[in-house]
Amino acid sequence: MITPNQLHHLGEFGLIARWRNQLSQRAGVRLGIGDDAAVLDSLQVPIVTCDGLVEKVHFRRDWTAPRALGRKAISVNVSDIAAMGGRPVAAFITIAIGPNDDLEFLEELYAGFEEAAADYNLSIAGGDTVRSPTELMLNITVIGDAPMPILRSGAQVGDLLLVTGTLGDSAAGLALLQNPSLTVPAAAGTYLLQRHHDPTARLAEMQAALQMSPVTGQLASVPPDVTAALDISDGLAGDAAHMAECSLVSLEIEVAQLPISPSCQETAAIMGVSALDWALRGGEDYELLLCVPSHLAHDVQERITKATGTQVTVIGRCVPRTSDAVILIYPDGTRAAAGSAFSHF
Amino acid sequence: MITPNQLHHLGEFGLIARWRNQLSQRAGVRLGIGDDAAVLDSLQVPIVTCDGLVEKVHFRRDWTAPRALGRKAISVNVSDIAAMGGRPVAAFITIAIGPNDDLEFLEELYAGFEEAAADYNLSIAGGDTVRSPTELMLNITVIGDAPMPILRSGAQVGDLLLVTGTLGDSAAGLALLQNPSLTVPAAAGTYLLQRHHDPTARLAEMQAALQMSPVTGQLASVPPDVTAALDISDGLAGDAAHMAECSLVSLEIEVAQLPISPSCQETAAIMGVSALDWALRGGEDYELLLCVPSHLAHDVQERITKATGTQVTVIGRCVPRTSDAVILIYPDGTRAAAGSAFSHF
Repeated sequence: MITPNQLHHLGEFGLIARWRNQLSQRAGVRLGIGDDAAVLDSLQVPIVTCDGLVEKVHFRRDWTAPRALGRKAISVNVSDIAAMGGRPVAAFITIAIGPNDDLEFLEELYAGFEEAAADYNLSIAGGDTVRSPTELMLNITVIGDAPMPILRSGAQVGDLLLVTGTLGDSAAGLALLQNPSLTVPAAAGTYLLQRHHDPTARLAEMQAALQMSPVTGQLASVPPDVTAALDISDGLAGDAAHMAECSLVSLEIEVAQLPISPSCQETAAIMGVSALDWALRGGEDYELLLCVPSHLAHDVQERITKATGTQVTVIGRCVPRTSDAVILIYPDGTRAAAGSAFSHF
Repeated sequence: MITPNQLHHLGEFGLIARWRNQLSQRAGVRLGIGDDAAVLDSLQVPIVTCDGLVEKVHFRRDWTAPRALGRKAISVNVSDIAAMGGRPVAAFITIAIGPNDDLEFLEELYAGFEEAAADYNLSIAGGDTVRSPTELMLNITVIGDAPMPILRSGAQVGDLLLVTGTLGDSAAGLALLQNPSLTVPAAAGTYLLQRHHDPTARLAEMQAALQMSPVTGQLASVPPDVTAALDISDGLAGDAAHMAECSLVSLEIEVAQLPISPSCQETAAIMGVSALDWALRGGEDYELLLCVPSHLAHDVQERITKATGTQVTVIGRCVPRTSDAVILIYPDGTRAAAGSAFSHF
């Protein structure tokens, strides 16, 4: 067991030197950790995203293993890069280390960063290491390249609305953590916790949708087969509303089509709550919401599933703007305006 | 007075919308705040730096006005970009807002960000807004372009060692904050506090040294007139040691040549401490340490001073590597190894 005291003894430069040796530099980085700034290879269209992660707000040490936390911190940023139609190149990690942190925890966290970096073929190329008087705080910035960025504002009336994977799993996993006395089948519990703790950014899925070269980032088809995209991090209802508002369209969602996993359904039934509510309003799904011209939707679906095994579901369509940004259509034909997003604040 | 409660009411998206309207987008940014990621114009050689700033570790609310804190948070990152020989393009701000923050404080902080962004001609193009259970925390990532980056590893034996401005002022300012009962001349106090709270990144100075086009970032002379550079943030002695180690040279520093302001000298005398120690080991100077081939040193000095008014002092030279990375030479010819850097951790 390595104590906080040893951490202090190692110091800022000792920690940086240690991590520098553990982190692989991949293509795209000319100069990583160690100078005033990192130096990257030329970027055609640089895209940049940041996520702050604060202990007791975004994660709890007793719920999340540090390696999974490290993986997730990278994945949620790569998810944003994927949603823009980009390739991630480099991540920059600022860590504010609190008095409760020990070297063992930090080494596992960095092992998680590096595992995810390898998965997504990016480099951890810099950041800052500082002290926190209380909680651990992280900021991850990921820089990517997107020769033809896909914005959330590009949705066109007539487009179909596609979603990758299943929705609500992360919220179900969180509910299990919040209700430890609950009894659910082990397989469902394992699956949902994994979806909550260790989401996979849908990078390969977006690259398949766009027929993008993973090396150059160039698209096989111009204009792109996807007109608008975002990653669902605040719940489908709220994120779809952002897309609708940015695109000046309304989005109709067929409630019966929403992809909800058996594990999520099962857990909701045991808890006596609505799986649909988790799917619509649960956060942290990190699935992609895509708008695709209707005549291309089948091809896009097939390409994604063939390349990655991930299911893709048509859940609705873009319609001319009305007073409601997102309209839910129930199996009996009832229509209702969807609610708003989860606010992190 | 706007209360924390109103802050909560405004929410994450309300805050983002508010700030989005206050922040100007300048050249180089295609798409700022509002999508999954920001989109920048093509970058020839992207350079990236991050700084974490944590309340009670890096700043105290009773010592620092929020507007100055906002300015400084940008300046310290631009200082790193300047030291690499780059132009800043975009800043990304992650803010973890604590229970003690109110909207007035945050508005002033963002006004400071925007003032500094205007000064350095960069855009605040994104970030993340989250909640902190305790202290305010910031991470600033700045991305720039440096067609020909100047590294700290490029120093050559025979180069002269130049420093911009004066050293030790920030440490003297900090000493005044730590000793409020001290009596010093008002002008000295004002100057030193300003140097501590609101340092100016030496961007124009580096551009003058390199004869760099502020628009394209191209250098008039190749190879560049500066062989190695860094910004002095951890104290001259420590930062010079980093440069010496990266460049595999030793650096001789003439103690009598170190530029120390009259205000710093005066305050040190009143406190009965060593101004030289502040100059060598005080942190947060944000002056540039430059290595320049000896036949170019006079030209570089003159160009910087002519363009910016900032004094530039030759403080030493690069010599073949010995067991000591940095050697201090006193007026009587005594030689001593310099100590180590300030560790932030």
